[in-house]
Amino acid sequence: MKALVFDGHHLRLEYNHPDPVPAGDEALVRVRLAGICNTDVEIMRGYRGFTGVLGHEFVGTVEHCADPRLIGQRVVGEISCSCGECETCRAGRYTHCPQRTTLGIIGRDGALGEWLVLPMRNLHRVPPGVPDEAAVFTEPLAAAIEVLEQVHLHPTDRVYVVGDGKLGLLVAQVLSLTGCEIASVGRHPEKLALLQARGIATILANQTADLDRSADVACQVADVVVDCTGHPAGFELARRLLRPRGTLVLKSTFASRRGVALTPLVVDEIKLVGSRCGPFAPALRLLRRELVDVRSLITATYPIDDGLAAFRRARKKGTLKVLVSMV
Amino acid sequence: MKALVFDGHHLRLEYNHPDPVPAGDEALVRVRLAGICNTDVEIMRGYRGFTGVLGHEFVGTVEHCADPRLIGQRVVGEISCSCGECETCRAGRYTHCPQRTTLGIIGRDGALGEWLVLPMRNLHRVPPGVPDEAAVFTEPLAAAIEVLEQVHLHPTDRVYVVGDGKLGLLVAQVLSLTGCEIASVGRHPEKLALLQARGIATILANQTADLDRSADVACQVADVVVDCTGHPAGFELARRLLRPRGTLVLKSTFASRRGVALTPLVVDEIKLVGSRCGPFAPALRLLRRELVDVRSLITATYPIDDGLAAFRRARKKGTLKVLVSMV
Repeated sequence: MKALVFDGHHLRLEYNHPDPVPAGDEALVRVRLAGICNTDVEIMRGYRGFTGVLGHEFVGTVEHCADPRLIGQRVVGEISCSCGECETCRAGRYTHCPQRTTLGIIGRDGALGEWLVLPMRNLHRVPPGVPDEAAVFTEPLAAAIEVLEQVHLHPTDRVYVVGDGKLGLLVAQVLSLTGCEIASVGRHPEKLALLQARGIATILANQTADLDRSADVACQVADVVVDCTGHPAGFELARRLLRPRGTLVLKSTFASRRGVALTPLVVDEIKLVGSRCGPFAPALRLLRRELVDVRSLITATYPIDDGLAAFRRARKKGTLKVLVSMV
Repeated sequence: MKALVFDGHHLRLEYNHPDPVPAGDEALVRVRLAGICNTDVEIMRGYRGFTGVLGHEFVGTVEHCADPRLIGQRVVGEISCSCGECETCRAGRYTHCPQRTTLGIIGRDGALGEWLVLPMRNLHRVPPGVPDEAAVFTEPLAAAIEVLEQVHLHPTDRVYVVGDGKLGLLVAQVLSLTGCEIASVGRHPEKLALLQARGIATILANQTADLDRSADVACQVADVVVDCTGHPAGFELARRLLRPRGTLVLKSTFASRRGVALTPLVVDEIKLVGSRCGPFAPALRLLRRELVDVRSLITATYPIDDGLAAFRRARKKGTLKVLVSMV
């Protein structure tokens, strides 16, 4: 099959990558559309030491599996493949199974190829009204929803989302549905404009710096801050925006090895919440009702044959979501 | 002024009711549009022993007060008037102040007249894009939002809302925005149809009874159930739908004096949450973004001169919201 393969040094478009073979509990899925995530770019910088077919955001059609009801269905898939038997799995924390493989990230070929395999239990049918271009966002939207799963966000809370990348834009939209007082802080007027169009308040980061000088206005006012930057400077801004005893959600992994100072978290009695993968079913429900706008986040779609160009585009400054079409 | 006045026995339309006079911290508001709530009907059956001008749902224009920025503004108003000084108020629990008066419910004339007075701090400006017909729902919508304020609703939770009256329809819409798996249980196909139009699942109550007989299907499956019926039978259904260690929210006061059995709550370790007034600011944010459909809930609008007919209509079976216009 055709696939975008990272060999530890370079990304290659292979035309004769071996077709994946499903195990007994797995389904063979023909990928229709896949997304490029920042994590894919991080992997090419050495994150997780992964080699193989990249990609973990996709929508596809089930071609073969033991359950006849699944065959021919349009599906999306949870990316963590857990053992289902260890103490962690039996406690319901499947995405934290120490034996897990993860689609295109840990020990399992990913979605940026014509075919993939995933356990049948990982698959979710896509409702008929949700087009491929929206369904392909299920995985990152689920990650945004995970914040609501972990934190009791009150409708009276004041909330800041720091970072206007793809994930930040999804998090701001999801959290705003609770009716909370929310503003998104970012550096890109054209990205923040997507939120303004949905009636969500935004703050340009240099404006924040200005407010910062009159500390009692902008700082230590939020009940909850979500850092979607993955940069120590974003973390620092998030912390300064948070009130004492507030909740700081870390929604991005940190590419930098530079550490952050923890003493202020003790002094202000901050609750820090790390946040990663989220639940697919609520994401599909929000997509079905069009309560989140994902299609405005698409910068470009490339055919798999132009997959290397797709990655070049994904790494360009100012790019939001780049999709790769297999059909 | 013209006003709908309950004297303890009868409701009268008075043409020369004394105009209210604002105290120093109060504003005089010219009422534009007011809503009739089930609580108003309950008051006429003796609830709270209230006499005076009925009504607590309104949108109006500030005519006179000490703060010049408020004058001429279109406003809605929180209905509980607290002392601000007692231990309860200093703890932030203003709506539970033991000294409180409540618009049209406890010791204070209400909104079903040409004028009302409320403390300035109770007022919220209505955003320009929100029409009167939507703004008049701020108070009941805030009450629906109070559920999210009190309970950490997870996007993966299975939730039932029992009761398809006005409040039940608002609660179902608000909770559905979290992405949770939700269904509304009611007895009125035409009311449930309003939710179906928004993509929210519904169950006709007699269907529930059917499912009930195969107990393992419909019963003890929900993580959270909200009872919006105010009837012991609704409470009983809500309890049966709830899983052990689930959360049962009581969103309506109970007109019946018949008690309910509490032992099942102990056996199943149920958490019971009483829920009343809610926060106005999130309600106005959801109305501004049109994330909740309130205008479909309007059955009819009457001029104040036909106020007695408005109440007759409000008490008719199958009626949703009846509004009374003062202008």
